Amino acid sequence: MPSRVGKYTIQLQTNPAVLGYAAVVGKKEGEGPYGQAYDQCHADTTLGEASWEKAESRLQNEAVHIALHKANLNNTDVNCIFAGDLLNQCISSTFGLRSLDIPFLGQFGACSTMAQTLAVASLFVESGAAVRAVAVTSSHFCSAERQYRYPLEYGGQRSPTAQWTATAAGSVILGTRSQYPTASIGLQAVTFGRIVDYGIKDAANMGAAMAPAAASTLIDYFNDTGTNPQDYDLVLTGDLGLVGSSLLDDLMQREGKDIRSVHNDCGLMIYDREKQDVHAGGSGCGCSAAILCSTILQQMDAGKLHKVLFLGTGALMSPTSSQQGESIPSVAHLVYLKS
Amino acid sequence: MPSRVGKYTIQLQTNPAVLGYAAVVGKKEGEGPYGQAYDQCHADTTLGEASWEKAESRLQNEAVHIALHKANLNNTDVNCIFAGDLLNQCISSTFGLRSLDIPFLGQFGACSTMAQTLAVASLFVESGAAVRAVAVTSSHFCSAERQYRYPLEYGGQRSPTAQWTATAAGSVILGTRSQYPTASIGLQAVTFGRIVDYGIKDAANMGAAMAPAAASTLIDYFNDTGTNPQDYDLVLTGDLGLVGSSLLDDLMQREGKDIRSVHNDCGLMIYDREKQDVHAGGSGCGCSAAILCSTILQQMDAGKLHKVLFLGTGALMSPTSSQQGESIPSVAHLVYLKS
Repeated sequence: MPSRVGKYTIQLQTNPAVLGYAAVVGKKEGEGPYGQAYDQCHADTTLGEASWEKAESRLQNEAVHIALHKANLNNTDVNCIFAGDLLNQCISSTFGLRSLDIPFLGQFGACSTMAQTLAVASLFVESGAAVRAVAVTSSHFCSAERQYRYPLEYGGQRSPTAQWTATAAGSVILGTRSQYPTASIGLQAVTFGRIVDYGIKDAANMGAAMAPAAASTLIDYFNDTGTNPQDYDLVLTGDLGLVGSSLLDDLMQREGKDIRSVHNDCGLMIYDREKQDVHAGGSGCGCSAAILCSTILQQMDAGKLHKVLFLGTGALMSPTSSQQGESIPSVAHLVYLKS
Repeated sequence: MPSRVGKYTIQLQTNPAVLGYAAVVGKKEGEGPYGQAYDQCHADTTLGEASWEKAESRLQNEAVHIALHKANLNNTDVNCIFAGDLLNQCISSTFGLRSLDIPFLGQFGACSTMAQTLAVASLFVESGAAVRAVAVTSSHFCSAERQYRYPLEYGGQRSPTAQWTATAAGSVILGTRSQYPTASIGLQAVTFGRIVDYGIKDAANMGAAMAPAAASTLIDYFNDTGTNPQDYDLVLTGDLGLVGSSLLDDLMQREGKDIRSVHNDCGLMIYDREKQDVHAGGSGCGCSAAILCSTILQQMDAGKLHKVLFLGTGALMSPTSSQQGESIPSVAHLVYLKS
């Protein structure tokens, strides 16, 4: 049974088990620092599909199938799938997963979606509502650019604070601990974030908009559990990029919780910022999903990482809200993984 | 603890309690058959806001505040809020609820969102992950028309199979049964639907696209629980409209589960189809939310209705997927309410 700890944190007494995971990425991501860690790197942004949206759907579909295969499971072994993405009406998820015939629960948390799907799935497994559940999300540079910004053909200039939407998908399969007592990685706790809005209106500087939400949830978690940054091997945010990450470090220092020695950000990890011209770093649901579902969980499986706080951050705006002069509300959800 | 029954159904052993509910609607809905049942009817589609999107956000905000007030609760008494809507990136929910300071979990199920938010909230309360949780959703005719179809100024003609997106929001507050033993309405079971796609491509005939998904989930539930339509006072779908409702009745008859004597549809209830020129009926997340959170829960509180299967149906498409020649995948989620 899950039990509430402090004001916002939920402890998972049974430690739902990670049964399998997979990351599928595009060409640019495959050429990044963790190219060798992904299960599949595509050389073509369309994946041979007729549109970028269909290509993104396929990223999710492949991420789930590979993770199921690695866990020696079939789609019929899974009780429910939690999925979401950045496209309007979450069509990467709905079209990418419709063939799976698994009860489908669409989630929307913008770039915090991987943490949200993982957190909700873990609670379903912890409570017995599901024996096995899948969490998956994706993003695609081309489908996101034309939906949120400009047609690619226009060649719009990017500001230094802008982040590059990753073409990637990541998937995790969770199972009830009693059936998988020896699984090396388990989920220990989750903290769902409240919406935070500091009034930032620059949609080309989402890291700055999301940093306060990340700080809010991280502080809630540390307060609820009475722990400190140094109690963990890694505080992994996704995706604040360069600007947001340094803002978060500052905000946490002011709260007396210095995370600099253990903090890393998926948006800073997925690309080589020197060589790959991604300005402030990577972003998109698929960015944190691909980093978590490759090098991070691999290092935990290998015993190189043990205590990881995964903190997904999302900017809850749309082109319409920005056009109407609105600021960018943000949210961050936390999952504590232990091996 | 929730317990799995059959292949797809989850039984809620503690029967999470309905602590409060509210429905807030627009002018046309207020002039409909259930105008007297809503907590608030607005005479102006903008609610005095600068845009229809901001007006829709306000519908959700009011629905939550009124429900909290009716339950004698404050926002700080609630552990998490499950919300979603039809707008891109769910901005009615994110902007409408950002001031509440309640952990926020965005849900996307198109018009099945009220059932999905209610079902997930009930599992959080059942398991102890939340002591109190809120489920809320909304839709707005004007914001939906310009996002999904045409600018209102264009005055596009509507086909006879088209449904009218309701300007409405509904909210339910759930609480753990042990703290509210005398609450009259409780949630007994939920069944999450699988994505069903019969290849329907007409976005002006969503009822036909959604009916097979409704049939699939309803049959799953009857099979899992060994019950029949006649074991319930009402099978309430939302929102199939005229075309989808008759299709569902046919599909269920073929399966030997005749629901005609107990079936009603929120899309057929919310407007007077003779007088209000809504063609096949109402639709939109807010349609089933407003009907459930007014006359239905009121009749259950008054002892006039006891066993209700609430079946939310959603068409998981977007204008982009339709423009790319895709069909309309659909999903339906079921919640069993008892008083």
